[in-house]
Amino acid sequence: MAPAPDAPIDRTASHFLRACRGEPVERIPVWFMRQAGRSLPEYRAVRGEGSILQAIKDPELSATITRQPVERYGVDAAILYSDIVVPAEAIGFGVDVVPGVGPVIAEPFASAADLGRLRPLDPEADTPYVLDTVRLLVEQLDVPLIGFAGAPFTVASYLIEGRPSRTYAKTKALMHGDPALWAKLVDALADLALASLRSQVAAGASAVQLFDSWAGALSPDDYRRFVLPASAKVLEGIGETGVPRIHFGVGTGELLGLLGEAGADVVGVDWRVPLDVARARVGGRAVQGNLDPALCLAPLPVVEAATREVLRRGGGVGHVFNLGHGVLPETDPAVLERVVALVHDEGVALGAEGAAT
Amino acid sequence: MAPAPDAPIDRTASHFLRACRGEPVERIPVWFMRQAGRSLPEYRAVRGEGSILQAIKDPELSATITRQPVERYGVDAAILYSDIVVPAEAIGFGVDVVPGVGPVIAEPFASAADLGRLRPLDPEADTPYVLDTVRLLVEQLDVPLIGFAGAPFTVASYLIEGRPSRTYAKTKALMHGDPALWAKLVDALADLALASLRSQVAAGASAVQLFDSWAGALSPDDYRRFVLPASAKVLEGIGETGVPRIHFGVGTGELLGLLGEAGADVVGVDWRVPLDVARARVGGRAVQGNLDPALCLAPLPVVEAATREVLRRGGGVGHVFNLGHGVLPETDPAVLERVVALVHDEGVALGAEGAAT
Repeated sequence: MAPAPDAPIDRTASHFLRACRGEPVERIPVWFMRQAGRSLPEYRAVRGEGSILQAIKDPELSATITRQPVERYGVDAAILYSDIVVPAEAIGFGVDVVPGVGPVIAEPFASAADLGRLRPLDPEADTPYVLDTVRLLVEQLDVPLIGFAGAPFTVASYLIEGRPSRTYAKTKALMHGDPALWAKLVDALADLALASLRSQVAAGASAVQLFDSWAGALSPDDYRRFVLPASAKVLEGIGETGVPRIHFGVGTGELLGLLGEAGADVVGVDWRVPLDVARARVGGRAVQGNLDPALCLAPLPVVEAATREVLRRGGGVGHVFNLGHGVLPETDPAVLERVVALVHDEGVALGAEGAAT
Repeated sequence: MAPAPDAPIDRTASHFLRACRGEPVERIPVWFMRQAGRSLPEYRAVRGEGSILQAIKDPELSATITRQPVERYGVDAAILYSDIVVPAEAIGFGVDVVPGVGPVIAEPFASAADLGRLRPLDPEADTPYVLDTVRLLVEQLDVPLIGFAGAPFTVASYLIEGRPSRTYAKTKALMHGDPALWAKLVDALADLALASLRSQVAAGASAVQLFDSWAGALSPDDYRRFVLPASAKVLEGIGETGVPRIHFGVGTGELLGLLGEAGADVVGVDWRVPLDVARARVGGRAVQGNLDPALCLAPLPVVEAATREVLRRGGGVGHVFNLGHGVLPETDPAVLERVVALVHDEGVALGAEGAAT
């Protein structure tokens, strides 16, 4: 899929989209997971109290929040301000996102009877605010907008555990104890994610990220058997739209190859696996990452050195610079400003140099 | 270090100790991290309320708790009922272990001035109750007793963060921002761990496990630079006693080789890395693990199949069967009884078969 090294650079497409496709770029693109959020004073100023789910239902507010980091940092992509439980909430599963806790489910998924609570998503009717936000942003932004959804395993883990878990014991007990029910559950959640992503792309999103945030809790055998087919359904389905598909979970060092096999164009990598090592595991796909977000709380020279090391390990082609997980709320935005400047100044792609000769 | 495949089996040493040394055994030994604890009704019956640190100061109680899983399960090793923050608490750093939370530090480590709060440990004077417990157990047990300590990084993370952390942001900021201070801190904590382990071995412990529970939060580069030297000081120091050294942290797939390099005889592996893959990373050392503790909450046939798969992947030589992390409190002890029986029945070591031919 990657063009020959001497292919001309398509200057009509963004650096971000070209890097996602493994094409030569003049400089490495950069954005940050959770770039819109509590680390920004301008976010705290407009966000107010209450559940994120309420804020997401206000398209003007969500568009403003989405644009804030683009305007402050000059990142190369925006990511929709939303949450991975939005589709499940929208079809009435009974989900709230409690500040300081995370998603909480009033009546967790426990048996086949609960499958009936997972009706198909009709995006225009169920999540019109998401699509209104996307449409606003496509008008307003001059960088690509990344839509997103939660992958079936991670959303299932919330629905089953009822709240954030450290062990995923109920989820694992269900997948192993009743594989047929598990398969129906993640298939329904795949349909939910796919419908949401398709609608976001139809409304104008230029790329998508499928977050399987907690898949790293699984062994490779469990991932392959119980998770990959459902994630592949989402990624293959969205592949028909032609937009780049990023796939990410934290702590997935052992799963990087499988995340790629599921149908990703770009595999997100946390900070535990150096990017050159990660690249060898993802079979020629592009990689995204992987500065340790905790390091952004260290002194600036440390952040600069770590940023340069990520650029070096990334190798300059098929690399979207990002953190290895979301921006920590206590991060000083000035640090991320410096990271963006440094990536833009020094992240001259090897591919572009190759193309110039 | 491993003997030739046709070496005779030393029937005077325990299966557990022989497996730790990579020697042929007649059957795979098994014990469980956190085998003594809340999952056992007999533990809940004797434990009472309050901090674990109080229970640890009662040698009769601690010895009883340590023996409970040996008596119930017939595991091949006991592990001292204690906590990794015991030495830091004993020298007066101001540590408590709050039920449902974990270690909490009244005044976290923040600057060079706090180094003065880390005086050397005098085990007989500071932790006589630990040594009394060990001495009681050595009289009472007919299986080896594993002593243990917290590795410098993990203990440092508690002292710096002040309570359990998900990001280790302050810890990483300190190690990167003031490497000289960090080096002094982990060196002091290495001395603390080493003094404690030496005293446990002198009192009769037959093996030790060094828990670097949270080292998996680090990149390999950070681990090698900031953690490995201090852990190596502990493991090399205890190596002089001749007892097997087990070294474990959760989520350490990328670090398994480095955990071995630090001086482990046995590298503990969580469930994310299949044991045959892990073995290739640890350079001929023995491995310990790695049944997913969450799977012990699944139906029994699932647990049995997963146990057999761990045995198969373990390969029969240099394998100590264990969970991939601690027993979950909600685990049914009957499940672990079945796992032990199955390992004892079916964990016939390939090495022993080889030795028998």
